[in-house]
Amino acid sequence: MPEVRLAQEEIRRHNAGTLLRHVHLGGAVSRTALAERMRLNRSTIMALTTELATAGLVREELPADTGRAGRPSLVVRPDSGQVYVLAFDVAVDRLVAARVALGGIMLDRREAVRPRAGADLDRVVEVLARFGRQLHRTAPPDSVCVGVGASYCGMIRPGDGMVRFGPDMGWVDQAFGTELGRRLGLGLPVSVGNEAHLGALAEQQRGAGSGFQNLIYLHGDVGVGGGIIVGGKLLDGDGGYGCELGHMVVNPYNGRPCGCGSHGCLEAEVGERALLDAAGRPADLFGRDAVRAVVDDADRGDSAAQEALHQVGDWLGIGVANLINLFNPGMVVFGGMLRDMYPGAATQVRARIATNVLPVARERVRLRTSALGDDATLVGAAELGFSDLLADPLGVLTRTTR
Amino acid sequence: MPEVRLAQEEIRRHNAGTLLRHVHLGGAVSRTALAERMRLNRSTIMALTTELATAGLVREELPADTGRAGRPSLVVRPDSGQVYVLAFDVAVDRLVAARVALGGIMLDRREAVRPRAGADLDRVVEVLARFGRQLHRTAPPDSVCVGVGASYCGMIRPGDGMVRFGPDMGWVDQAFGTELGRRLGLGLPVSVGNEAHLGALAEQQRGAGSGFQNLIYLHGDVGVGGGIIVGGKLLDGDGGYGCELGHMVVNPYNGRPCGCGSHGCLEAEVGERALLDAAGRPADLFGRDAVRAVVDDADRGDSAAQEALHQVGDWLGIGVANLINLFNPGMVVFGGMLRDMYPGAATQVRARIATNVLPVARERVRLRTSALGDDATLVGAAELGFSDLLADPLGVLTRTTR
Repeated sequence: MPEVRLAQEEIRRHNAGTLLRHVHLGGAVSRTALAERMRLNRSTIMALTTELATAGLVREELPADTGRAGRPSLVVRPDSGQVYVLAFDVAVDRLVAARVALGGIMLDRREAVRPRAGADLDRVVEVLARFGRQLHRTAPPDSVCVGVGASYCGMIRPGDGMVRFGPDMGWVDQAFGTELGRRLGLGLPVSVGNEAHLGALAEQQRGAGSGFQNLIYLHGDVGVGGGIIVGGKLLDGDGGYGCELGHMVVNPYNGRPCGCGSHGCLEAEVGERALLDAAGRPADLFGRDAVRAVVDDADRGDSAAQEALHQVGDWLGIGVANLINLFNPGMVVFGGMLRDMYPGAATQVRARIATNVLPVARERVRLRTSALGDDATLVGAAELGFSDLLADPLGVLTRTTR
Repeated sequence: MPEVRLAQEEIRRHNAGTLLRHVHLGGAVSRTALAERMRLNRSTIMALTTELATAGLVREELPADTGRAGRPSLVVRPDSGQVYVLAFDVAVDRLVAARVALGGIMLDRREAVRPRAGADLDRVVEVLARFGRQLHRTAPPDSVCVGVGASYCGMIRPGDGMVRFGPDMGWVDQAFGTELGRRLGLGLPVSVGNEAHLGALAEQQRGAGSGFQNLIYLHGDVGVGGGIIVGGKLLDGDGGYGCELGHMVVNPYNGRPCGCGSHGCLEAEVGERALLDAAGRPADLFGRDAVRAVVDDADRGDSAAQEALHQVGDWLGIGVANLINLFNPGMVVFGGMLRDMYPGAATQVRARIATNVLPVARERVRLRTSALGDDATLVGAAELGFSDLLADPLGVLTRTTR
């Protein structure tokens, strides 16, 4: 039956990808542990690791002394020298590019300050493509670029990386992914994702939420973005535009105006401007340094700064409580600017959760700040770049040449 | 390799289940269409249908005159005479039991009014088990009960059908699923689900949202429950307690008190009591007839009733707009009491969506009332009862005997 032959090939591909994903995300792991986790026998694991090692994707070595008698199981680790991805991050205040190896190791990076206003597609792509070509050129001659991922602070059409709406830069329907791919000239497509979506995936795969199947990531900068993992997968919705938790209305009748045209959205009540206004800072001040100054002042006992964090924290708590009722998550992660703000607002957030969330829905939830910090979105972009390789390691290597 | 033999067996089981699901949900379908939809060749489809027909689960027959020349493809339909499930619905105002055949055909049913207050586990289970045994006893002697599903108006622990919280009946940690299974005495476990979760699945499988992979179902009765389909699957969250959209706070500072202890929850602002109060109805009036009377009065031009629907509709709109921003769904379905209320509140709901939802996230969403009406939850319970059979049709038949 042809179906069965096809299925066997699919199973082998799936197994090779799963094994590579285990060592890519988990680091060195013994063959025995791989066999247990993948529910395969040891001879199948051996065949798969041999194939991946021959392709230069993993290395096998004897473990350090295990202290046990008997022949130790070989340890499999990602080979960080053979393949890499390029990862890009277009954030509200910076443009970043990095070369990232299997195992998630940042090998090299370039970064530029981005002015808050006046960044058109051409200029942004030009800077990123120049960084990318530099990173590619300076890579070891025998290494291969297997994918390109990019994070963007806006709403992205999944198929082609079109920016449907980039509120911060005033972009509407800009062909960001296609243009970046063309200007890089590597013959590789660029996978683009929303920054908070990618931050959520990064925190779930390599950060605070490792192992959590249901996780909410809130990313604060000028506004508030969200990435929501449901059953181990990013919630994308019908067009890929889900997770817009920043535009959940929490204050419908006295709400601050929001950049989206509405009032009382979560991001209008807890975003950068809301905090700076509440703390009585001048209207022309902005950016993460200004936010951190409020947090630092609160830490030093400034009551106006403390009160500003409490006020914003109450709105944040209403939003987070709503999300816990809806998603019954195992973890909520505060990232971006919210990582700095959360500790000073945690009492208010916890109080709202205690009041507003049904006890059964909150009995196991944990609240954490981002473990990857400002790099969460870049790490997520790198993982997006690796996704083809992890789906079909040997197929991608065959198709990709430097 | 033993993995491959296992995989072949798994593939066959998966294919048999998928084929049966196609005819169970879609009705009569030609072998040719099945081959196309399942991406299998015709000989594999023939082998699968022969197996399922021998087991009495499907019938094959010549289609009505197709008007085309050549040999017509045989049509496969569910055989509604051989197997059935028992489905139960514990709603705020009634207890229902039904015997449901493959293809979703309601063969027989029993129903009792449930008083609003004072229903303990023992009494509810006694009524349902009596109905269930009657339905089982009067089934044709050669038919087999292959599953039992139940819908309950509260928060359910997925594994064993424990009611963690049943606000309407005051239940906390009541072993509903286990007790109903024991009292039925059929030797079958009872799968229990939250009523709005099951309503969502029913509308997606057999109702207004057929074919939609991202769908939000709002179920109104005393409160407002939700079932949310994300990527074709019910959002359950870490413990199975997700989708509690009725406790999303929409009116944090002037909100009506909610049964959960908080204020301004969606269900406090749009539930039965909110509508009846807004319409100036007496405080001792309740139930779906009272709600329908407000809707009827509004339809007849009563301005107080119209104004009440508009007021409730504005809050409903805020809640629905938040949900669309979060989930980017293809469809929102209004069920239960909201099915009656929605038409008189649609203008307010649509206005809130236009104001509060990002254009990209709402460009494809459709708003509909429930197609299954008051039976949505019961239909969902029946589908829950069928899930084991559809996962492994021949395995379940082998294990189940009347």
